[in-house]
Amino acid sequence: MKRIDWKLCLVADVETAAGKYIISSIKEAIEGGVSLVQLRAKKLETHEFFELSLKVRETTKKKNIPLIINDRVDITLSCNADGVHLGQDDLPVSYARKILGKKKLIGVSVNTEKEAEEAEKRGADYLGVGPIYFTQTKKDIKPPLGVEGLREIRKRVRIPILAIGGISVENAREIVEAGADGIAVVSAILATENIIKATRELAQAISQAGND
Amino acid sequence: MKRIDWKLCLVADVETAAGKYIISSIKEAIEGGVSLVQLRAKKLETHEFFELSLKVRETTKKKNIPLIINDRVDITLSCNADGVHLGQDDLPVSYARKILGKKKLIGVSVNTEKEAEEAEKRGADYLGVGPIYFTQTKKDIKPPLGVEGLREIRKRVRIPILAIGGISVENAREIVEAGADGIAVVSAILATENIIKATRELAQAISQAGND
Repeated sequence: MKRIDWKLCLVADVETAAGKYIISSIKEAIEGGVSLVQLRAKKLETHEFFELSLKVRETTKKKNIPLIINDRVDITLSCNADGVHLGQDDLPVSYARKILGKKKLIGVSVNTEKEAEEAEKRGADYLGVGPIYFTQTKKDIKPPLGVEGLREIRKRVRIPILAIGGISVENAREIVEAGADGIAVVSAILATENIIKATRELAQAISQAGND
Repeated sequence: MKRIDWKLCLVADVETAAGKYIISSIKEAIEGGVSLVQLRAKKLETHEFFELSLKVRETTKKKNIPLIINDRVDITLSCNADGVHLGQDDLPVSYARKILGKKKLIGVSVNTEKEAEEAEKRGADYLGVGPIYFTQTKKDIKPPLGVEGLREIRKRVRIPILAIGGISVENAREIVEAGADGIAVVSAILATENIIKATRELAQAISQAGND
């Protein structure tokens, strides 16, 4: 399996990026310093998602940035992404692993200590832990964990943690200091006027963690 | 690969069956004589579709009826269905084949002679040809082929053909006499008061083909 730099993950959500061309947004985010891209497209037809995944794959490969596909194990294989990210509404980890084998990463969204421990036990390679703060991006909002909740989950699992949900340049540093291996953002990058600048500032905030 | 009796396929469309419990409808259709079931659930979350697929798999397996999953190659593998049915909006056949290997069936929906020839060339195991007649079930309706259109496609390909779209007990026989290996129906079974009876009448109409 590829070694991953978990620092800063762009969740390239097609609906959030609507109106802006998603490929150019991803390119700018990579230029600004994201270390990982997750492609999410809950409402696209399979064929549209597939076609988009091939384009995103090409874009990320050129810059040697790992690509994770949200939800769809079949599209993960079709575009030869580095892995899949599974929500609690997606396939169970064990079934995804059986299809994907050991060479692909499997990430799992968790909101509680129990979910985190279970996902690790069942073979997840990393966790998406959140929401940390309130967020407008997702409609089915679960209770925010806060930095304390994140710390508790960090104590229970060994696999890498990407913290997600309401994270911005103001709080990115404290998240990483609380034990996250990195942060994942949607609108903090996609919904900004200047994506390169916003990404740079986030990457800088993260790199300052522990540097006091 | 399993030998398939193509005669009568129930397209178990979760939206059409809404309000009626889909599993009991499938059981009744099997009792009435369907030889094949395709499970379609375009709007369900992956996890809901997956859970349902396991239940349907259990139901069909007990009666030794093959199960085809619409669109989702990942769910096909997860529930160990016999194959996948791909629309023109789903994954391309070649990508699905790479994931599924030779042991799973791949069916492809086609509406023209060109699409039919291409699907066969690319490795489809069977075709869903339609719509033959006007139908209310699907919203993105393509031009109906009629019996003549079906005959033309039959001349161009060797793989089995399941005719679909507006087929009823009144016209099932002429469809099979025009060269279809079987018919696939949604509402002609699911939207009836007595599923067992409706299915029996369809099966009987098909069995009369060529018997003059």
